[in-house]
Amino acid sequence: MQGSLSVSDSDVSSFTPLVVLELADDTKAEAITWLLNRIRGKQQNGGAELLVDQLLFPAQDGQKSNQNVFVVGSTLQRLLKGAEDVGLFKEFQDGTMRGFTYANRESFKDFYGDGEGFLSDAECQYIIKHELDTLRAKNEEHVPGYPKVKLYPGKSVVRRLQSKGVLVQYFPLHNKEDLKRLSFSWYKKIKLSFQPLDDIRHYFGEGLALYFGFLEYFTFALVPMAFIGIPYYLFDWEDYDKYVLFAVFNLVWSTVFLEVWKRCSATLAYGWGTLSHKKAFEEPRAGFHGALGFNPITGREEPVYPSSKRQLRIYLVSVPFVLLCLYLSFYVMMVYFDMENWAISIYNENPNLATGILLFVPSIIYAVVIEIMNLLYRYAAEFLTNWENHRLESSFQNHLVLKVLVFNFVNCFASLFYIAFVMQDMVLLRQSLATLLITSQILNQVMEAFLPYWLQRRRNKKVHKRMRRMMGDKELPLLEQVQLETEMNTYLGTFDDYLEQFLLFGYVSLFSCVYPLAAVLVVLNNITEVYSDAFKMCHVFKRPFSEPAANIGVWQLAFETMSIISVVTNCALIGLSSQVKAYFPESETQMILIVVAIEHVLLAFKFILAFVIPDVPKHIQVKLAKLEFDSLEALKKRFVCLSKDQKILLTQYVKSNVP
Amino acid sequence: MQGSLSVSDSDVSSFTPLVVLELADDTKAEAITWLLNRIRGKQQNGGAELLVDQLLFPAQDGQKSNQNVFVVGSTLQRLLKGAEDVGLFKEFQDGTMRGFTYANRESFKDFYGDGEGFLSDAECQYIIKHELDTLRAKNEEHVPGYPKVKLYPGKSVVRRLQSKGVLVQYFPLHNKEDLKRLSFSWYKKIKLSFQPLDDIRHYFGEGLALYFGFLEYFTFALVPMAFIGIPYYLFDWEDYDKYVLFAVFNLVWSTVFLEVWKRCSATLAYGWGTLSHKKAFEEPRAGFHGALGFNPITGREEPVYPSSKRQLRIYLVSVPFVLLCLYLSFYVMMVYFDMENWAISIYNENPNLATGILLFVPSIIYAVVIEIMNLLYRYAAEFLTNWENHRLESSFQNHLVLKVLVFNFVNCFASLFYIAFVMQDMVLLRQSLATLLITSQILNQVMEAFLPYWLQRRRNKKVHKRMRRMMGDKELPLLEQVQLETEMNTYLGTFDDYLEQFLLFGYVSLFSCVYPLAAVLVVLNNITEVYSDAFKMCHVFKRPFSEPAANIGVWQLAFETMSIISVVTNCALIGLSSQVKAYFPESETQMILIVVAIEHVLLAFKFILAFVIPDVPKHIQVKLAKLEFDSLEALKKRFVCLSKDQKILLTQYVKSNVP
Repeated sequence: MQGSLSVSDSDVSSFTPLVVLELADDTKAEAITWLLNRIRGKQQNGGAELLVDQLLFPAQDGQKSNQNVFVVGSTLQRLLKGAEDVGLFKEFQDGTMRGFTYANRESFKDFYGDGEGFLSDAECQYIIKHELDTLRAKNEEHVPGYPKVKLYPGKSVVRRLQSKGVLVQYFPLHNKEDLKRLSFSWYKKIKLSFQPLDDIRHYFGEGLALYFGFLEYFTFALVPMAFIGIPYYLFDWEDYDKYVLFAVFNLVWSTVFLEVWKRCSATLAYGWGTLSHKKAFEEPRAGFHGALGFNPITGREEPVYPSSKRQLRIYLVSVPFVLLCLYLSFYVMMVYFDMENWAISIYNENPNLATGILLFVPSIIYAVVIEIMNLLYRYAAEFLTNWENHRLESSFQNHLVLKVLVFNFVNCFASLFYIAFVMQDMVLLRQSLATLLITSQILNQVMEAFLPYWLQRRRNKKVHKRMRRMMGDKELPLLEQVQLETEMNTYLGTFDDYLEQFLLFGYVSLFSCVYPLAAVLVVLNNITEVYSDAFKMCHVFKRPFSEPAANIGVWQLAFETMSIISVVTNCALIGLSSQVKAYFPESETQMILIVVAIEHVLLAFKFILAFVIPDVPKHIQVKLAKLEFDSLEALKKRFVCLSKDQKILLTQYVKSNVP
Repeated sequence: MQGSLSVSDSDVSSFTPLVVLELADDTKAEAITWLLNRIRGKQQNGGAELLVDQLLFPAQDGQKSNQNVFVVGSTLQRLLKGAEDVGLFKEFQDGTMRGFTYANRESFKDFYGDGEGFLSDAECQYIIKHELDTLRAKNEEHVPGYPKVKLYPGKSVVRRLQSKGVLVQYFPLHNKEDLKRLSFSWYKKIKLSFQPLDDIRHYFGEGLALYFGFLEYFTFALVPMAFIGIPYYLFDWEDYDKYVLFAVFNLVWSTVFLEVWKRCSATLAYGWGTLSHKKAFEEPRAGFHGALGFNPITGREEPVYPSSKRQLRIYLVSVPFVLLCLYLSFYVMMVYFDMENWAISIYNENPNLATGILLFVPSIIYAVVIEIMNLLYRYAAEFLTNWENHRLESSFQNHLVLKVLVFNFVNCFASLFYIAFVMQDMVLLRQSLATLLITSQILNQVMEAFLPYWLQRRRNKKVHKRMRRMMGDKELPLLEQVQLETEMNTYLGTFDDYLEQFLLFGYVSLFSCVYPLAAVLVVLNNITEVYSDAFKMCHVFKRPFSEPAANIGVWQLAFETMSIISVVTNCALIGLSSQVKAYFPESETQMILIVVAIEHVLLAFKFILAFVIPDVPKHIQVKLAKLEFDSLEALKKRFVCLSKDQKILLTQYVKSNVP
């Protein structure tokens, strides 16, 4: 194969390798030739015009490595043009963010010479991913050598190969230099400081940087709550007026900080150029299938799946399944309470250290079971959502998030609600809250970072040894790196990380007025969470493709919903407390009415506050408006010197798009 | 003056007059010459390229008419090019709505020959208004002849003249033929039918058509409620379970119909081409003033008013004033209750017909007082909002609507809330509701349509007589029409009409479970309302300029807020009822908790319902996506044959606007 690199050739390929492409070991040679030709082909012929080389691993000990591993790179010029294709926003000379164009490249800040270093690694890799993803079939009816892997004009080749298992995976390579520098400034420094969000974004992209930004913001936002919560614990304050004060502060605070986060994230996203970056037409997901029909929007032939069928699957299968799971979760909860009662009865019969420890066993078992159920349900939810056959990745994600969110919420908080409002036992509530919170924190950190790290280290050593054996003393860092990273686990996105924060927020806010210490625990957890998440991103997982994001999306809504629910629960808890009841000795009714009235006022206040605080800070709004105005003006000015035909074209375009 | 028309010349001007421009009687001749030259001037010289003629009314009986009345018209070609400037959307040959371009004019549906009849009168007048409004000062430092009326480059000439009182008014002329046809199909037909919304939109524009569409939709939506409400009245049903049923139906129904209205309005707006029509950069309001500074967005010199000063005015003056008015409204309410008690005591002392009638007097007086207070407050609110010096008309409107809405809500419903929840007297509540509803309906219809009509008729007769006297037997329909319409009242927008519907919605929904008959009354009112509003638009007021609108804007939010409040009030009313209390003889607490729980479930259900029902129907979504896709495709295809320079320009524009 031309241009392929064997070990004996040279370890360093002729270009900087950015993305690894792994095809199945038994892929037919004609398919490989075809794919490589398409990737290398000129753009005007529908190619991606990228550079690609094969990596040849020497076979040894009968253990034959996969021979179909390729590295993809690109010339600088191609990348800059690609930056224009994907609509990157970069900082202009005047300090505003503007859509990058190759023609105007020299007017952008930090563009020197031929543009070396203008695009970050993550951006280059994102561009290559985009170019690969938009490599479309022309007249091929199927992939050469695979008559069953059908194609039609306009179908993304890479997605089809992926869904048929010919393309095993493709992922961006780590940059060891940058990674070292990043991990040093991120989590290896001793002194306390903010996270290097811009560097994180440079290396991992905006989606992840926003997650870490949110994690930091959320932790800082909890610090005042934690500080106010500490004396409650230290001095054993049991006065309910103090608890009420804490709860009210908590509610107002949680509204304010969620609103302010929107502004922060808008500021971050503006600086990163993703605030104005709108998504183009979304490609169908890799797994989407259907009968060949016509897309009503593009008019092109492509698989179509009637949405009525999908609705049926959702309402007749998914919804009942979710409800069944919720029932199961309730059932497990009741078993837990039985165990709890049994443990208490044993302790009461014979109170000693062993039975004292036994008291905690049911809670711990329940916490572990909850985690396991969440994990199992997660797989089921993914399977079901996949089976619902959503056309777009975004709609798939929304349905998945909704399913997982509802179950996790019920699973984690059902027992607390039961204790609080059915059993009305505040001491037990506090104790359960503490047990659940601490157990789930420890479990999470172990499951999420240290267990994978340990597995990864064992694997690394094995690979290292094998590579040594294979190649003797030759220094072959690229081959080894590719080999190592190919076998690393894939980071599945920020979903689980956000979910964890969401549940922690629930523990803090839902029952804040009975357990003010929760905020302290969550702050402590999140400080270690930053380190373990950072570590996990840098050393445990494959580098993920960067994901442009302007905000935290559906999670904003989830956190806001939680803060609304917490108004209700806190008011109810306050109403239940004996101290508050003591204020209204004659009339319980009056007390309830007052509590309900306060609850309504708080809810109304929340909505008004959310309405009054603008989502985007004023100075960003002005910059955005300025950009829009400038481009309209530029258009008008230049319009005069166009020919009539071009005027028509431009006008038509503008009128139907930006009227 | 060249081109001016005197009566002796000809009554018919050389073009179809569309808009009337009235300058102050004492306007200096040089200012008039300058303005006319600017209006007639070529577009490349910054003129509006419109046609304009002076109307000369003969003086008689010492009563000199204003000599500075002008009619403005335009050539067809200019109008079609103007349609492109304002971004009109028209139906394309393939049935989709597309941005109109002069170059592609022949590909649009209903475009025949030179395009006669392609644009409706309302559209032509809207275009002329836009061209007049965007007539900008060039290097003039002030209006010729008026050194104090300062100008700066880019300032809208018409707005400055208007704010300084030189331009008294400008308004579109009625088209007698069309008006006759419209009023026949609208309200003169005997047989029941839907309103001719498309014709209304053709004649009055989208804003008004949407109002009438909403009025019709709202009325139809109330019919089921009215039907279910009738038996409650006929059979004197007093069972609370039936009332509860009615209330629950009411709540769910009001959520559903408000959500479905969004879809209806999207469908209407799509068909009228306003759904994709986004507003361009908004001009400062005519009344906006400030020190000359630099606009941070355009970088141009223009008046700037610090928003901190505005905030101070809002929070230190407007908010306290509104609160004071609310207090006053409460005070008046308490006086009403004193009067009510006094009337009852007199009746009890000596029950006869006279004192029986006296029982109703306080309610009627109170209803009248409420209307008067609303009216006075309206002026105060307008004055205050004006004084707050908002830069944009939209922000002015929002602040005005908010002020008026809050006061009207409190003013109209405070007494009902007091009766319901403080006095807990359901019989009195029902009686007051009926009195308030009926009185305000009658007052509204009289004040809004018949009183102005009567005044208008008297004025018409006077003008007619005067014109006869002035001109003898000559037929001068245009002069007479202009004279008549100049003196007609100006229609101040749909604000009052929506406000009325909003309050009626309040009467229906807030206390629906004690007075199911309210819906019947409102349906009856709205049927006459359609006729009186239609009549008022056609014969009482000046024709308004058409106002492109894609939805009913802030009113959607207002109606939704009302339906949320009504969930709370209805649940509270049900909880207060003795029948429901009888179900829980031992524990009132339990009853309240159940009611509160139901209320929360209903509220949650409302939010979920609003979330699940898509705001734009699927088929419209597809059409919108198709339009966007098509124009991107067209751009890509044509891109290939452009020169390099034009590619740069186009790319730059596209990247920074539609990334």
